[in-house]
Amino acid sequence: MATGSDQFPTMYPVSGFKLGTTSAGIKTPGRADLVVMEIAAGSTVAGLFTQNDFCAAPVTLCKQHMASASPAYLLTNTGNANAGTGEQGLHDALQSCQALATAAGIDAEQVLPFSTGVIGEPLPMDRLLAGIPGALANLSEQGWSDAATGILTTDTRPKGASLQYAAGDGQVTITGISKGSGMIKPNMATMLGYVATDAEMNSELLHRALRLATNKSFNRITVDADTSTNDSIMLVATGTSGVLIDEISFDQFVEQLSLVFIELAQAIIRDGEGATKFVSVIVEGAVDSAEALAVAYTIAESPLVKTALTASDPNWGRILAAIGRAGLKDLDVNLVQLSLNSVLIAEQGARASSYTEEAGQQAMQPEDIDILVSLNRGQASETVWTTDLSYEYVRINAEYRT
Amino acid sequence: MATGSDQFPTMYPVSGFKLGTTSAGIKTPGRADLVVMEIAAGSTVAGLFTQNDFCAAPVTLCKQHMASASPAYLLTNTGNANAGTGEQGLHDALQSCQALATAAGIDAEQVLPFSTGVIGEPLPMDRLLAGIPGALANLSEQGWSDAATGILTTDTRPKGASLQYAAGDGQVTITGISKGSGMIKPNMATMLGYVATDAEMNSELLHRALRLATNKSFNRITVDADTSTNDSIMLVATGTSGVLIDEISFDQFVEQLSLVFIELAQAIIRDGEGATKFVSVIVEGAVDSAEALAVAYTIAESPLVKTALTASDPNWGRILAAIGRAGLKDLDVNLVQLSLNSVLIAEQGARASSYTEEAGQQAMQPEDIDILVSLNRGQASETVWTTDLSYEYVRINAEYRT
Repeated sequence: MATGSDQFPTMYPVSGFKLGTTSAGIKTPGRADLVVMEIAAGSTVAGLFTQNDFCAAPVTLCKQHMASASPAYLLTNTGNANAGTGEQGLHDALQSCQALATAAGIDAEQVLPFSTGVIGEPLPMDRLLAGIPGALANLSEQGWSDAATGILTTDTRPKGASLQYAAGDGQVTITGISKGSGMIKPNMATMLGYVATDAEMNSELLHRALRLATNKSFNRITVDADTSTNDSIMLVATGTSGVLIDEISFDQFVEQLSLVFIELAQAIIRDGEGATKFVSVIVEGAVDSAEALAVAYTIAESPLVKTALTASDPNWGRILAAIGRAGLKDLDVNLVQLSLNSVLIAEQGARASSYTEEAGQQAMQPEDIDILVSLNRGQASETVWTTDLSYEYVRINAEYRT
Repeated sequence: MATGSDQFPTMYPVSGFKLGTTSAGIKTPGRADLVVMEIAAGSTVAGLFTQNDFCAAPVTLCKQHMASASPAYLLTNTGNANAGTGEQGLHDALQSCQALATAAGIDAEQVLPFSTGVIGEPLPMDRLLAGIPGALANLSEQGWSDAATGILTTDTRPKGASLQYAAGDGQVTITGISKGSGMIKPNMATMLGYVATDAEMNSELLHRALRLATNKSFNRITVDADTSTNDSIMLVATGTSGVLIDEISFDQFVEQLSLVFIELAQAIIRDGEGATKFVSVIVEGAVDSAEALAVAYTIAESPLVKTALTASDPNWGRILAAIGRAGLKDLDVNLVQLSLNSVLIAEQGARASSYTEEAGQQAMQPEDIDILVSLNRGQASETVWTTDLSYEYVRINAEYRT
């Protein structure tokens, strides 16, 4: 199950960034599961990684390699997360980098490894290594669509976003892909995301742009509150457009970058495990951003709210109960207003006098649901995107791995 | 669905504490749904209530009445929570107290109201008021079993616990009932719990005992992380046994009281919505209790861990991922050890070398599962009880109310 359109968008190539995908038979014979991305010399690269203490071996290695060299290749496999694999996992990740480095004639530190899939199984190294030449042979600036498919796990569809915008005399392209469907509550990034631009940027600005866009997108989604061990998001600027992003043009770039990031993040929620609803939880009138997020996430992660959404049931009592346990200081419940898809449901600590059960039922029918909470005690607001909790979510996660 | 035995225990009456149950037709005609409890004069009474900001009208009134008078009656209805009902809800709760007070010839402040059931609907006052005389007519010290049934909502079985112990020359009886199945993560108490003893205690000691026993029981359970708007637990000491509990005999009393509380709290988990597993999450070797609880609750509330439990799948990678996102400071993942029902599963950040998939599969088959996490960095330990997340949980909560 998934919500929204399953049409894959037009992907504008980014000059200086190539993608090659192959089938290495990591877990399922015949499916695309190994992706190599090549970064032209002179590019700048920024990355954000999971804050899970049990981070996967490739995440550990990514951080080490980024600290010591300029990345030239990104190597991604699906079917196996190489997480919970201890020393052996680090050894396997490094060996993968070395194999690609040898084939490409560079240093192993210039390769960043990424893995996604089952936790706790050793990487099938012979199959993975045997697949690398095939992926290299397929490298192309047109390779986005194949790569978007080659990084999926329980996802039901590839996820991409792409745009071009005018900047001064030139034009900037931003194109990216993401994957993720379950174990989704990114904390710095999504499960996996790769975004490239042909803008020219120094490393400091690139990192700042990555952080800003991530905080509006991948750090605002939750399927099941489970932060992955492998979350990684990479942003590459090849500079081939000749458009230099400086402090003056920075805001415009971040705005456009955020559009791509939000589309990729929302695509993960639309394809959330068992999703039948796409839910925007909007909290307004909070004292600060932290408070708005606390309320938004408590609603978005409440099993009782999520099962009511599955049933298209305007069970607003469960939403009030979630607000009430979000840990706000001195909350005056009489100021709180709650709307579902623009229908005012509750105020003054009770059902709104204008509310009818029919209006509530009708508001819950669409696939896309806005839950709007006005706390009416400050100026801060935040939006978090989430899914419902369906039978299908339980089926997928009870059956996965076994 | 539920786990463990469904046999209701022998309930020792508590002299000075009577219970009367009737069917008032609050929600479902013919089912027991109205319970009156009568507290003999001279008793001491202690209560703990939900910390949900959207607490229900009866909770607000309970706190007011306990501050101003000595409770003589507890009035409980099921089928309607009288929560999210604003001013009207407070008015209705007070009117219920007044009706019972008039019938019994006491002040309204001496009545404490409790409601459980659907949130956000007004109480059906005529039916509730009409039921009070019938409940009063049934008052009896033998009334525990009927009352245990008369407070249920989505529970599939009544919940009781009772014991007697020798104290000096005398004997103390402790008997109680509880209810709750979903929206269970009490924060000071369970959905509803009533425990009476014939011990004689002053109010200060009674409150202290209530807090200590609650923190080992009702404050250590979670079905779905959703703290209810109506959580309340009452402890009544009638003093009729003639055994005075003082500072010297206090520890023994708390020990016995905790046995009753833990049995009542675990009964809620065994009857958790859709439960097919009874899961004890035991965290040892933590720096402090807060850290042990953070890890235990992150595991107990992870949808991915809970769906793996439903599938009897030893998916330990999901448990490691939960530990890793519990927010511990400077966690050395190489020190963490994980066992499932005494089978060592993971250590050194990876699968234990002694582990076999067969042993893991076998460990997950029983209805009762112990998840033991040794952090090996301190002396604190905590245990939290929870359920799995099954199709049945989704069905119950998608269908409830609609």
